[in-house]
Amino acid sequence: MGMFIATVAGQVHVHDLRVRYADTDRMDMVYHGAYAAYLEAARVEMLRDAGFVYAQMEREGTLLPVVQLELTYKKPARYDEELEVHTHIVQPLTSKLELHCEVRRGEDILVVGRVVLVFVDGSSGRPKRAPETLSQTMSEMGLVWS
Amino acid sequence: MGMFIATVAGQVHVHDLRVRYADTDRMDMVYHGAYAAYLEAARVEMLRDAGFVYAQMEREGTLLPVVQLELTYKKPARYDEELEVHTHIVQPLTSKLELHCEVRRGEDILVVGRVVLVFVDGSSGRPKRAPETLSQTMSEMGLVWS
Amino acid sequence: MGMFIATVAGQVHVHDLRVRYADTDRMDMVYHGAYAAYLEAARVEMLRDAGFVYAQMEREGTLLPVVQLELTYKKPARYDEELEVHTHIVQPLTSKLELHCEVRRGEDILVVGRVVLVFVDGSSGRPKRAPETLSQTMSEMGLVWS
Amino acid sequence: MGMFIATVAGQVHVHDLRVRYADTDRMDMVYHGAYAAYLEAARVEMLRDAGFVYAQMEREGTLLPVVQLELTYKKPARYDEELEVHTHIVQPLTSKLELHCEVRRGEDILVVGRVVLVFVDGSSGRPKRAPETLSQTMSEMGLVWS
Repeated sequence: MGMFIATVAGQVHVHDLRVRYADTDRMDMVYHGAYAAYLEAARVEMLRDAGFVYAQMEREGTLLPVVQLELTYKKPARYDEELEVHTHIVQPLTSKLELHCEVRRGEDILVVGRVVLVFVDGSSGRPKRAPETLSQTMSEMGLVWS
Repeated sequence: MGMFIATVAGQVHVHDLRVRYADTDRMDMVYHGAYAAYLEAARVEMLRDAGFVYAQMEREGTLLPVVQLELTYKKPARYDEELEVHTHIVQPLTSKLELHCEVRRGEDILVVGRVVLVFVDGSSGRPKRAPETLSQTMSEMGLVWS
Repeated sequence: MGMFIATVAGQVHVHDLRVRYADTDRMDMVYHGAYAAYLEAARVEMLRDAGFVYAQMEREGTLLPVVQLELTYKKPARYDEELEVHTHIVQPLTSKLELHCEVRRGEDILVVGRVVLVFVDGSSGRPKRAPETLSQTMSEMGLVWS
Repeated sequence: MGMFIATVAGQVHVHDLRVRYADTDRMDMVYHGAYAAYLEAARVEMLRDAGFVYAQMEREGTLLPVVQLELTYKKPARYDEELEVHTHIVQPLTSKLELHCEVRRGEDILVVGRVVLVFVDGSSGRPKRAPETLSQTMSEMGLVWS
Protein backbone atom coordinates (compact mmCIF):
# COMPACT_ATOMS: atom_id res chain seq x y z
CA MET A 1 0.00 0.00 0.00
CA GLY A 2 1.17 3.48 -0.78
CA MET A 3 0.15 6.67 -2.49
CA PHE A 4 0.96 8.77 -5.51
CA ILE A 5 2.21 12.33 -5.02
CA ALA A 6 2.40 14.96 -7.74
CA THR A 7 5.70 16.81 -8.19
CA VAL A 8 6.76 19.34 -10.80
CA ALA A 9 8.48 16.57 -12.77
CA GLY A 10 5.65 14.03 -12.60
CA GLN A 11 4.03 11.56 -10.24
CA VAL A 12 6.02 9.68 -7.66
CA HIS A 13 4.88 6.65 -5.69
CA VAL A 14 5.46 6.67 -1.93
CA HIS A 15 5.67 3.44 0.06
CA ASP A 16 6.01 3.44 3.87
CA LEU A 17 7.93 0.84 5.81
CA ARG A 18 9.29 0.31 9.28
CA VAL A 19 12.87 -0.83 9.94
CA ARG A 20 12.94 -4.24 11.64
CA TYR A 21 15.60 -5.53 13.99
CA ALA A 22 16.36 -8.18 11.38
CA ASP A 23 17.39 -5.42 8.96
CA THR A 24 19.98 -3.84 11.24
CA ASP A 25 23.63 -4.77 11.66
CA ARG A 26 26.15 -4.27 14.42
CA MET A 27 27.06 -0.82 13.09
CA ASP A 28 23.57 0.00 14.46
CA MET A 29 22.17 0.85 11.06
CA VAL A 30 20.27 -0.86 8.29
CA TYR A 31 22.53 -3.43 6.58
CA HIS A 32 23.37 -2.10 3.12
CA GLY A 33 22.06 -5.26 1.45
CA ALA A 34 18.64 -4.90 3.09
CA TYR A 35 17.66 -2.02 0.80
CA ALA A 36 17.23 -4.42 -2.13
CA ALA A 37 14.13 -5.84 -0.42
CA TYR A 38 12.90 -2.37 0.55
CA LEU A 39 13.02 -1.23 -3.08
CA GLU A 40 11.40 -4.48 -4.21
CA ALA A 41 8.49 -4.03 -1.80
CA ALA A 42 8.06 -0.43 -2.95
CA ARG A 43 7.95 -1.15 -6.68
CA VAL A 44 5.50 -4.03 -6.23
CA GLU A 45 3.19 -1.65 -4.35
CA MET A 46 3.63 1.01 -7.04
CA LEU A 47 2.45 -1.51 -9.63
CA ARG A 48 -0.41 -2.65 -7.40
CA ASP A 49 -1.57 0.90 -6.69
CA ALA A 50 -1.57 1.48 -10.45
CA GLY A 51 -3.75 -1.59 -10.98
CA PHE A 52 -1.13 -4.23 -11.80
CA VAL A 53 -0.51 -7.18 -9.48
CA TYR A 54 2.98 -8.50 -10.13
CA ALA A 55 2.13 -11.96 -8.76
CA GLN A 56 -0.68 -12.07 -11.34
CA MET A 57 1.67 -10.97 -14.13
CA GLU A 58 3.93 -13.90 -13.21
CA ARG A 59 1.03 -16.34 -13.36
CA GLU A 60 0.22 -14.97 -16.81
CA GLY A 61 3.77 -15.61 -18.00
CA THR A 62 5.62 -12.32 -17.53
CA LEU A 63 8.64 -12.39 -15.24
CA LEU A 64 10.49 -9.24 -14.26
CA PRO A 65 13.97 -10.05 -12.90
CA VAL A 66 16.40 -7.34 -11.82
CA VAL A 67 19.35 -6.92 -14.20
CA GLN A 68 20.96 -3.91 -12.58
CA LEU A 69 20.95 -2.38 -9.13
CA GLU A 70 22.82 0.74 -8.09
CA LEU A 71 22.61 2.03 -4.55
CA THR A 72 24.24 5.16 -3.14
CA TYR A 73 24.21 5.37 0.64
CA LYS A 74 24.12 8.95 1.94
CA LYS A 75 22.95 8.59 5.53
CA PRO A 76 22.25 5.59 7.74
CA ALA A 77 18.72 4.45 8.58
CA ARG A 78 18.21 3.26 12.14
CA TYR A 79 16.13 0.61 13.89
CA ASP A 80 12.39 1.27 14.15
CA GLU A 81 12.47 4.35 11.94
CA GLU A 82 9.57 4.82 9.58
CA LEU A 83 10.93 5.30 6.09
CA GLU A 84 9.42 6.26 2.78
CA VAL A 85 10.51 4.83 -0.53
CA HIS A 86 9.82 7.24 -3.40
CA THR A 87 9.74 5.56 -6.81
CA HIS A 88 9.26 6.80 -10.34
CA ILE A 89 10.09 5.52 -13.82
CA VAL A 90 13.04 7.02 -15.67
CA GLN A 91 12.09 6.41 -19.30
CA PRO A 92 9.27 4.90 -21.37
CA LEU A 93 9.02 1.13 -20.96
CA THR A 94 10.69 -1.00 -23.62
CA SER A 95 11.76 -4.53 -22.74
CA LYS A 96 13.21 -2.80 -19.71
CA LEU A 97 11.76 -0.97 -16.75
CA GLU A 98 14.15 1.55 -15.24
CA LEU A 99 13.32 2.99 -11.84
CA HIS A 100 14.69 5.79 -9.72
CA CYS A 101 14.16 5.27 -6.00
CA GLU A 102 14.84 7.37 -2.93
CA VAL A 103 14.67 6.06 0.59
CA ARG A 104 13.72 8.98 2.78
CA ARG A 105 13.24 9.78 6.43
CA GLY A 106 11.16 12.94 6.49
CA GLU A 107 13.00 15.41 4.27
CA ASP A 108 16.31 13.51 4.45
CA ILE A 109 17.31 11.38 1.49
CA LEU A 110 19.16 8.38 2.95
CA VAL A 111 19.68 6.13 -0.04
CA VAL A 112 19.32 6.70 -3.78
CA GLY A 113 18.70 3.70 -5.99
CA ARG A 114 18.53 2.90 -9.67
CA VAL A 115 16.96 -0.42 -10.59
CA VAL A 116 16.70 -1.89 -14.07
CA LEU A 117 14.36 -4.84 -14.59
CA VAL A 118 13.72 -6.74 -17.78
CA PHE A 119 10.44 -8.20 -18.99
CA VAL A 120 10.94 -11.90 -19.66
CA ASP A 121 8.62 -14.44 -21.25
CA GLY A 122 8.09 -17.15 -18.64
CA SER A 123 7.98 -20.05 -21.09
CA SER A 124 10.82 -19.11 -23.45
CA GLY A 125 12.94 -17.31 -20.87
CA ARG A 126 13.59 -14.56 -23.41
CA PRO A 127 13.19 -10.79 -23.07
CA LYS A 128 10.00 -9.32 -24.50
CA ARG A 129 8.34 -5.93 -24.72
CA ALA A 130 6.51 -4.62 -21.68
CA PRO A 131 2.76 -5.39 -21.73
CA GLU A 132 1.10 -2.57 -23.69
CA THR A 133 -1.51 -1.75 -21.02
CA LEU A 134 1.24 -1.41 -18.44
CA SER A 135 3.37 0.94 -20.57
CA GLN A 136 0.37 3.06 -21.38
CA THR A 137 -0.96 3.28 -17.85
CA MET A 138 2.42 4.19 -16.40
CA SER A 139 2.78 7.01 -18.94
CA GLU A 140 -0.76 8.26 -18.53
CA MET A 141 -0.39 8.34 -14.76
CA GLY A 142 2.65 10.58 -15.12
CA LEU A 143 4.98 8.06 -13.50
CA VAL A 144 7.39 8.17 -16.46
CA TRP A 145 9.56 11.26 -16.04
CA SER A 146 11.63 11.20 -19.20
CA MET B 1 31.92 -29.34 3.56
CA GLY B 2 32.40 -30.74 7.00
CA MET B 3 33.52 -33.81 8.87
CA PHE B 4 32.15 -36.62 10.98
CA ILE B 5 33.37 -37.01 14.56
CA ALA B 6 32.84 -40.07 16.73
CA THR B 7 31.37 -39.55 20.20
CA VAL B 8 30.32 -42.10 22.82
CA ALA B 9 26.71 -41.75 21.66
CA GLY B 10 27.39 -42.00 17.94
CA GLN B 11 28.66 -39.97 15.01
CA VAL B 12 28.10 -36.25 14.77
CA HIS B 13 28.57 -34.08 11.72
CA VAL B 14 30.52 -30.85 12.14
CA HIS B 15 30.07 -27.93 9.75
CA ASP B 16 32.19 -24.75 10.00
CA LEU B 17 30.91 -21.30 9.17
CA ARG B 18 31.95 -17.70 9.62
CA VAL B 19 29.54 -15.04 10.93
CA ARG B 20 28.91 -12.37 8.29
CA TYR B 21 28.05 -8.72 8.93
CA ALA B 22 24.70 -9.42 7.29
CA ASP B 23 23.90 -11.91 10.08
CA THR B 24 24.41 -9.46 12.93
CA ASP B 25 21.94 -7.04 14.45
CA ARG B 26 22.29 -3.84 16.41
CA MET B 27 22.55 -5.77 19.69
CA ASP B 28 25.97 -6.67 18.20
CA MET B 29 25.18 -10.36 17.98
CA VAL B 30 23.86 -12.80 15.41
CA TYR B 31 20.16 -12.07 14.77
CA HIS B 32 18.16 -14.93 16.27
CA GLY B 33 16.44 -15.66 12.96
CA ALA B 34 19.76 -16.13 11.16
CA TYR B 35 20.36 -19.51 12.79
CA ALA B 36 17.70 -21.12 10.60
CA ALA B 37 20.01 -20.69 7.61
CA TYR B 38 23.04 -21.86 9.60
CA LEU B 39 21.28 -25.10 10.52
CA GLU B 40 20.06 -25.52 6.94
CA ALA B 41 23.58 -25.16 5.54
CA ALA B 42 24.88 -27.66 8.11
CA ARG B 43 22.32 -30.41 7.42
CA VAL B 44 22.76 -30.10 3.65
CA GLU B 45 26.49 -30.63 4.13
CA MET B 46 25.83 -33.58 6.48
CA LEU B 47 23.78 -35.21 3.72
CA ARG B 48 26.40 -34.38 1.08
CA ASP B 49 29.26 -35.73 3.20
CA ALA B 50 27.24 -38.94 3.60
CA GLY B 51 26.82 -39.21 -0.16
CA PHE B 52 23.41 -37.58 -0.66
CA VAL B 53 23.03 -34.33 -2.56
CA TYR B 54 19.82 -32.67 -1.46
CA ALA B 55 19.53 -30.66 -4.70
CA GLN B 56 19.67 -33.99 -6.55
CA MET B 57 16.99 -35.50 -4.27
CA GLU B 58 14.75 -32.57 -5.18
CA ARG B 59 15.31 -33.12 -8.90
CA GLU B 60 14.35 -36.77 -8.37
CA GLY B 61 11.10 -35.75 -6.71
CA THR B 62 11.78 -35.77 -2.98
CA LEU B 63 11.25 -32.50 -1.13
CA LEU B 64 12.18 -32.04 2.49
CA PRO B 65 10.45 -28.99 4.00
CA VAL B 66 10.88 -28.03 7.65
CA VAL B 67 7.75 -28.66 9.76
CA GLN B 68 9.17 -27.77 13.14
CA LEU B 69 12.02 -25.63 14.39
CA GLU B 70 12.98 -25.13 18.01
CA LEU B 71 15.90 -22.93 18.96
CA THR B 72 17.24 -22.23 22.44
CA TYR B 73 19.67 -19.35 22.65
CA LYS B 74 22.24 -19.75 25.42
CA LYS B 75 25.01 -17.34 24.49
CA PRO B 76 25.37 -14.77 21.72
CA ALA B 77 27.55 -15.36 18.67
CA ARG B 78 29.49 -12.33 17.44
CA TYR B 79 30.60 -10.92 14.12
CA ASP B 80 33.42 -12.75 12.34
CA GLU B 81 33.50 -15.65 14.79
CA GLU B 82 34.11 -19.07 13.35
CA LEU B 83 31.33 -21.36 14.53
CA GLU B 84 30.72 -25.08 14.31
CA VAL B 85 27.31 -26.62 13.80
CA HIS B 86 27.15 -30.14 15.24
CA THR B 87 24.31 -32.22 13.82
CA HIS B 88 23.04 -35.71 14.46
CA ILE B 89 19.77 -37.58 13.90
CA VAL B 90 17.48 -38.20 16.87
CA GLN B 91 15.56 -41.29 15.75
CA PRO B 92 15.35 -43.69 12.80
CA LEU B 93 13.96 -42.03 9.68
CA THR B 94 10.26 -42.53 8.96
CA SER B 95 8.45 -39.96 6.86
CA LYS B 96 10.21 -37.55 9.17
CA LEU B 97 13.81 -36.59 9.76
CA GLU B 98 14.45 -35.24 13.23
CA LEU B 99 17.73 -33.49 13.91
CA HIS B 100 19.51 -32.25 16.99
CA CYS B 101 21.88 -29.37 16.33
CA GLU B 102 24.33 -27.43 18.42
CA VAL B 103 25.97 -24.21 17.34
CA ARG B 104 29.32 -24.06 19.09
CA ARG B 105 32.26 -21.70 19.48
CA GLY B 106 35.09 -23.87 20.71
CA GLU B 107 33.75 -25.71 23.75
CA ASP B 108 30.88 -23.26 24.27
CA ILE B 109 27.41 -24.29 23.16
CA LEU B 110 25.72 -21.10 21.96
CA VAL B 111 22.47 -22.36 20.47
CA VAL B 112 20.67 -25.70 20.64
CA GLY B 113 18.27 -26.59 17.87
CA ARG B 114 15.74 -29.27 17.07
CA VAL B 115 14.58 -29.46 13.48
CA VAL B 116 11.91 -31.76 12.10
CA LEU B 117 11.66 -32.17 8.35
CA VAL B 118 9.19 -34.25 6.39
CA PHE B 119 9.82 -36.22 3.21
CA VAL B 120 7.33 -35.08 0.59
CA ASP B 121 6.61 -36.45 -2.86
CA GLY B 122 7.25 -33.61 -5.30
CA SER B 123 4.43 -34.48 -7.70
CA SER B 124 1.64 -35.35 -5.25
CA GLY B 125 2.74 -33.01 -2.49
CA ARG B 126 2.10 -35.76 0.05
CA PRO B 127 4.35 -37.13 2.78
CA LYS B 128 6.19 -40.34 1.98
CA ARG B 129 8.71 -42.61 3.65
CA ALA B 130 12.37 -41.59 3.59
CA PRO B 131 14.32 -43.10 0.69
CA GLU B 132 15.51 -46.54 1.87
CA THR B 133 19.17 -46.00 0.96
CA LEU B 134 19.18 -42.77 2.94
CA SER B 135 17.67 -44.34 6.07
CA GLN B 136 20.07 -47.24 5.89
CA THR B 137 23.18 -45.16 5.30
CA MET B 138 22.37 -42.76 8.12
CA SER B 139 21.94 -45.68 10.52
CA GLU B 140 25.02 -47.54 9.35
CA MET B 141 27.13 -44.42 9.69
CA GLY B 142 26.06 -44.10 13.31
CA LEU B 143 24.39 -40.74 12.78
CA VAL B 144 21.10 -41.98 14.30
CA TRP B 145 21.48 -41.80 18.08
CA SER B 146 18.22 -43.32 19.28
CA MET C 1 0.62 -0.73 13.08
CA GLY C 2 -2.01 -3.22 14.02
CA MET C 3 -5.14 -3.65 16.09
CA PHE C 4 -6.41 -5.44 19.16
CA ILE C 5 -9.26 -7.93 18.82
CA ALA C 6 -11.30 -9.34 21.69
CA THR C 7 -11.68 -13.12 21.90
CA VAL C 8 -13.32 -15.28 24.57
CA ALA C 9 -9.87 -15.93 26.06
CA GLY C 10 -8.64 -12.35 26.02
CA GLN C 11 -7.26 -9.70 23.71
CA VAL C 12 -5.08 -10.60 20.76
CA HIS C 13 -2.97 -8.22 18.72
CA VAL C 14 -3.21 -8.48 14.92
CA HIS C 15 -0.40 -7.26 12.67
CA ASP C 16 -0.71 -7.29 8.86
CA LEU C 17 2.17 -7.89 6.51
CA ARG C 18 2.78 -8.64 2.86
CA VAL C 19 5.09 -11.46 1.70
CA ARG C 20 8.05 -10.05 -0.24
CA TYR C 21 9.97 -11.81 -2.99
CA ALA C 22 13.00 -11.70 -0.69
CA ASP C 23 11.12 -13.90 1.80
CA THR C 24 10.39 -16.72 -0.66
CA ASP C 25 12.56 -19.68 -1.56
CA ARG C 26 12.74 -21.97 -4.56
CA MET C 27 10.07 -24.25 -3.08
CA ASP C 28 7.85 -21.25 -3.96
CA MET C 29 6.93 -20.55 -0.37
CA VAL C 30 8.10 -18.36 2.47
CA TYR C 31 11.51 -19.58 3.70
CA HIS C 32 11.02 -21.11 7.13
CA GLY C 33 13.62 -18.85 8.68
CA ALA C 34 11.83 -15.70 7.49
CA TYR C 35 9.07 -16.09 10.10
CA ALA C 36 11.46 -15.00 12.86
CA ALA C 37 11.40 -11.48 11.42
CA TYR C 38 7.61 -11.60 10.89
CA LEU C 39 7.05 -12.44 14.56
CA GLU C 40 9.56 -9.79 15.61
CA ALA C 41 7.76 -7.09 13.58
CA ALA C 42 4.42 -8.19 15.07
CA ARG C 43 5.47 -8.09 18.72
CA VAL C 44 7.13 -4.68 18.32
CA GLU C 45 3.86 -3.35 16.93
CA MET C 46 1.91 -5.00 19.76
CA LEU C 47 4.08 -3.13 22.25
CA ARG C 48 3.78 0.12 20.30
CA ASP C 49 0.01 -0.15 20.00
CA ALA C 50 -0.09 -0.67 23.77
CA GLY C 51 1.97 2.48 24.32
CA PHE C 52 5.48 1.04 24.60
CA VAL C 53 8.14 1.79 22.01
CA TYR C 54 10.74 -0.95 22.14
CA ALA C 55 13.45 1.27 20.62
CA GLN C 56 12.80 3.70 23.49
CA MET C 57 12.99 0.88 26.06
CA GLU C 58 16.41 0.01 24.65
CA ARG C 59 17.59 3.62 24.93
CA GLU C 60 16.44 3.56 28.56
CA GLY C 61 18.50 0.46 29.26
CA THR C 62 16.14 -2.48 28.85
CA LEU C 63 17.07 -5.05 26.22
CA LEU C 64 14.77 -7.90 25.27
CA PRO C 65 16.66 -10.66 23.44
CA VAL C 66 14.96 -13.87 22.32
CA VAL C 67 15.98 -16.92 24.36
CA GLN C 68 13.63 -19.46 22.82
CA LEU C 69 11.83 -19.76 19.52
CA GLU C 70 9.54 -22.60 18.50
CA LEU C 71 7.86 -22.64 15.13
CA THR C 72 5.43 -25.22 13.79
CA TYR C 73 4.78 -25.00 10.06
CA LYS C 74 1.32 -26.19 9.07
CA LYS C 75 0.76 -24.71 5.63
CA PRO C 76 2.99 -22.73 3.29
CA ALA C 77 2.61 -18.99 2.78
CA ARG C 78 3.10 -17.75 -0.77
CA TYR C 79 4.53 -14.70 -2.48
CA ASP C 80 2.49 -11.49 -2.24
CA GLU C 81 -0.05 -12.92 0.18
CA GLU C 82 -1.31 -10.63 2.89
CA LEU C 83 -0.82 -12.35 6.22
CA GLU C 84 -1.89 -11.58 9.76
CA VAL C 85 0.24 -12.30 12.79
CA HIS C 86 -1.91 -12.81 15.91
CA THR C 87 0.01 -12.36 19.16
CA HIS C 88 -0.88 -12.67 22.80
CA ILE C 89 1.01 -13.20 26.05
CA VAL C 90 0.96 -16.63 27.66
CA GLN C 91 1.60 -15.82 31.31
CA PRO C 92 2.16 -12.81 33.58
CA LEU C 93 5.48 -11.09 32.91
CA THR C 94 8.40 -11.99 35.18
CA SER C 95 11.91 -11.54 33.90
CA LYS C 96 10.52 -13.31 30.87
CA LEU C 97 7.95 -12.46 28.25
CA GLU C 98 6.36 -15.50 26.67
CA LEU C 99 4.32 -15.05 23.52
CA HIS C 100 2.01 -17.22 21.48
CA CYS C 101 1.85 -16.24 17.82
CA GLU C 102 -0.18 -17.43 14.88
CA VAL C 103 0.54 -16.50 11.29
CA ARG C 104 -2.76 -16.58 9.46
CA ARG C 105 -4.10 -16.17 5.96
CA GLY C 106 -7.80 -15.49 6.39
CA GLU C 107 -9.10 -18.32 8.58
CA ASP C 108 -6.13 -20.59 7.87
CA ILE C 109 -3.45 -20.91 10.51
CA LEU C 110 -0.18 -21.33 8.62
CA VAL C 111 2.44 -21.18 11.35
CA VAL C 112 2.23 -21.36 15.13
CA GLY C 113 5.01 -19.81 17.16
CA ARG C 114 6.10 -19.61 20.75
CA VAL C 115 8.68 -16.97 21.59
CA VAL C 116 10.34 -16.43 24.94
CA LEU C 117 12.22 -13.20 25.50
CA VAL C 118 14.10 -12.10 28.58
CA PHE C 119 14.34 -8.61 30.05
CA VAL C 120 18.00 -7.69 30.36
CA ASP C 121 19.66 -4.70 31.99
CA GLY C 122 21.63 -2.96 29.27
CA SER C 123 24.54 -1.91 31.46
CA SER C 124 25.02 -5.07 33.55
CA GLY C 125 23.88 -7.51 30.90
CA ARG C 126 21.91 -9.38 33.56
CA PRO C 127 18.25 -10.45 33.58
CA LYS C 128 15.86 -8.21 35.48
CA ARG C 129 12.13 -8.01 36.14
CA ALA C 130 9.88 -6.59 33.45
CA PRO C 131 9.18 -2.86 33.89
CA GLU C 132 6.20 -2.58 36.24
CA THR C 133 4.15 -0.30 33.98
CA LEU C 134 4.59 -2.75 31.12
CA SER C 135 3.47 -5.79 33.16
CA GLN C 136 0.47 -3.93 34.50
CA THR C 137 -0.63 -2.51 31.16
CA MET C 138 -0.37 -5.86 29.40
CA SER C 139 -2.53 -7.48 32.10
CA GLU C 140 -5.08 -4.67 32.22
CA MET C 141 -5.45 -4.76 28.44
CA GLY C 142 -6.30 -8.44 28.62
CA LEU C 143 -3.30 -9.47 26.54
CA VAL C 144 -2.15 -11.97 29.20
CA TRP C 145 -4.22 -15.13 28.77
CA SER C 146 -3.01 -17.26 31.67
CA MET D 1 39.25 -18.39 3.54
CA GLY D 2 40.27 -18.00 -0.03
CA MET D 3 43.29 -17.69 -2.26
CA PHE D 4 45.11 -15.17 -4.41
CA ILE D 5 45.51 -15.86 -8.12
CA ALA D 6 47.86 -14.02 -10.44
CA THR D 7 46.43 -12.58 -13.66
CA VAL D 8 48.06 -10.42 -16.32
CA ALA D 9 46.53 -7.34 -14.71
CA GLY D 10 47.44 -8.17 -11.12
CA GLN D 11 46.41 -10.37 -8.23
CA VAL D 12 42.80 -11.30 -7.65
CA HIS D 13 41.35 -12.83 -4.51
CA VAL D 14 39.06 -15.84 -4.91
CA HIS D 15 36.48 -16.74 -2.25
CA ASP D 16 34.35 -19.89 -2.50
CA LEU D 17 30.80 -20.15 -1.25
CA ARG D 18 27.84 -22.45 -1.54
CA VAL D 19 24.32 -21.18 -2.35
CA ARG D 20 21.95 -21.84 0.54
CA TYR D 21 18.21 -22.41 0.30
CA ALA D 22 17.76 -19.21 2.28
CA ASP D 23 19.41 -17.27 -0.58
CA THR D 24 17.03 -18.48 -3.28
CA ASP D 25 13.69 -17.03 -4.31
CA ARG D 26 10.65 -18.43 -6.04
CA MET D 27 12.14 -17.68 -9.47
CA ASP D 28 14.44 -20.58 -8.48
CA MET D 29 17.53 -18.43 -8.43
CA VAL D 30 19.60 -16.47 -5.94
CA TYR D 31 17.62 -13.41 -4.81
CA HIS D 32 19.30 -10.34 -6.29
CA GLY D 33 19.69 -8.76 -2.86
CA ALA D 34 21.60 -11.76 -1.51
CA TYR D 35 24.74 -10.86 -3.46
CA ALA D 36 25.45 -7.96 -1.10
CA ALA D 37 26.29 -10.49 1.63
CA TYR D 38 28.28 -12.66 -0.81
CA LEU D 39 30.48 -9.71 -1.76
CA GLU D 40 30.81 -8.71 1.89
CA ALA D 41 32.01 -12.18 2.89
CA ALA D 42 34.48 -12.20 0.00
CA ARG D 43 36.11 -8.84 0.77
CA VAL D 44 36.43 -9.67 4.47
CA GLU D 45 38.29 -12.85 3.51
CA MET D 46 40.46 -10.92 1.05
CA LEU D 47 41.51 -8.63 3.88
CA ARG D 48 42.05 -11.55 6.24
CA ASP D 49 44.12 -13.49 3.71
CA ALA D 50 46.25 -10.36 3.30
CA GLY D 51 46.78 -10.18 7.05
CA PHE D 52 44.06 -7.70 8.07
CA VAL D 53 41.16 -8.77 10.26
CA TYR D 54 38.28 -6.38 9.71
CA ALA D 55 36.70 -7.14 13.08
CA GLN D 56 40.02 -6.12 14.65
CA MET D 57 40.14 -2.92 12.59
CA GLU D 58 36.71 -2.07 13.98
CA ARG D 59 37.86 -2.66 17.54
CA GLU D 60 40.79 -0.33 16.84
CA GLY D 61 38.43 2.41 15.67
CA THR D 62 38.27 2.09 11.89
CA LEU D 63 34.84 1.45 10.39
CA LEU D 64 34.36 0.69 6.71
CA PRO D 65 30.74 1.22 5.67
CA VAL D 66 29.58 0.75 2.08
CA VAL D 67 28.74 4.02 0.32
CA GLN D 68 28.06 2.66 -3.14
CA LEU D 69 27.02 -0.69 -4.53
CA GLU D 70 26.49 -1.49 -8.20
CA LEU D 71 25.46 -4.94 -9.31
CA THR D 72 24.94 -6.16 -12.86
CA TYR D 73 23.18 -9.51 -13.13
CA LYS D 74 24.18 -11.50 -16.21
CA LYS D 75 23.11 -15.06 -15.43
CA PRO D 76 21.23 -16.60 -12.52
CA ALA D 77 22.95 -18.62 -9.80
CA ARG D 78 21.05 -21.66 -8.58
CA TYR D 79 20.56 -23.50 -5.31
CA ASP D 80 23.52 -25.51 -4.03
CA GLU D 81 25.91 -24.26 -6.69
CA GLU D 82 29.46 -23.60 -5.60
CA LEU D 83 30.38 -20.09 -6.62
CA GLU D 84 33.59 -18.09 -6.63
CA VAL D 85 33.76 -14.40 -5.84
CA HIS D 86 36.77 -12.77 -7.51
CA THR D 87 37.77 -9.46 -5.94
CA HIS D 88 40.43 -6.88 -6.68
CA ILE D 89 40.97 -3.21 -5.89
CA VAL D 90 40.34 -0.64 -8.60
CA GLN D 91 42.59 2.23 -7.51
CA PRO D 92 45.05 3.13 -4.76
CA LEU D 93 43.37 3.54 -1.39
CA THR D 94 42.50 7.05 -0.27
CA SER D 95 39.71 7.54 2.23
CA LYS D 96 37.89 5.16 -0.08
CA LEU D 97 38.30 1.55 -1.01
CA GLU D 98 36.89 0.71 -4.42
CA LEU D 99 36.46 -2.92 -5.34
CA HIS D 100 35.63 -4.81 -8.52
CA CYS D 101 33.93 -8.16 -7.89
CA GLU D 102 32.84 -10.99 -10.13
CA VAL D 103 30.64 -13.83 -9.00
CA ARG D 104 31.56 -16.82 -11.11
CA ARG D 105 30.46 -20.40 -11.66
CA GLY D 106 33.37 -22.06 -13.38
CA GLU D 107 34.18 -19.88 -16.37
CA ASP D 108 30.78 -18.15 -16.36
CA ILE D 109 30.58 -14.66 -14.94
CA LEU D 110 27.15 -14.43 -13.29
CA VAL D 111 27.24 -11.08 -11.54
CA VAL D 112 29.61 -8.13 -11.74
CA GLY D 113 29.84 -5.78 -8.80
CA ARG D 114 31.46 -2.50 -7.92
CA VAL D 115 31.60 -1.64 -4.24
CA VAL D 116 32.88 1.60 -2.74
CA LEU D 117 33.58 1.69 0.99
CA VAL D 118 34.80 4.61 3.05
CA PHE D 119 37.22 4.54 5.97
CA VAL D 120 35.53 6.17 8.95
CA ASP D 121 36.92 7.10 12.33
CA GLY D 122 34.85 5.22 14.89
CA SER D 123 34.85 7.94 17.53
CA SER D 124 34.31 11.02 15.38
CA GLY D 125 32.24 9.33 12.70
CA ARG D 126 34.24 11.21 10.05
CA PRO D 127 36.03 9.90 6.96
CA LYS D 128 39.77 9.39 7.29
CA ARG D 129 42.62 8.07 5.18
CA ALA D 130 43.07 4.33 4.88
CA PRO D 131 45.55 2.88 7.39
CA GLU D 132 49.01 3.23 5.83
CA THR D 133 50.00 -0.42 6.33
CA LEU D 134 46.81 -1.52 4.62
CA SER D 135 47.32 0.72 1.57
CA GLN D 136 50.90 -0.36 1.24
CA THR D 137 50.24 -4.08 1.62
CA MET D 138 47.39 -4.05 -0.89
CA SER D 139 49.64 -2.32 -3.44
CA GLU D 140 52.64 -4.52 -2.80
CA MET D 141 50.53 -7.65 -3.14
CA GLY D 142 49.42 -6.49 -6.57
CA LEU D 143 45.76 -6.31 -5.57
CA VAL D 144 45.47 -2.71 -6.79
CA TRP D 145 45.01 -2.83 -10.54
CA SER D 146 45.00 0.86 -11.46
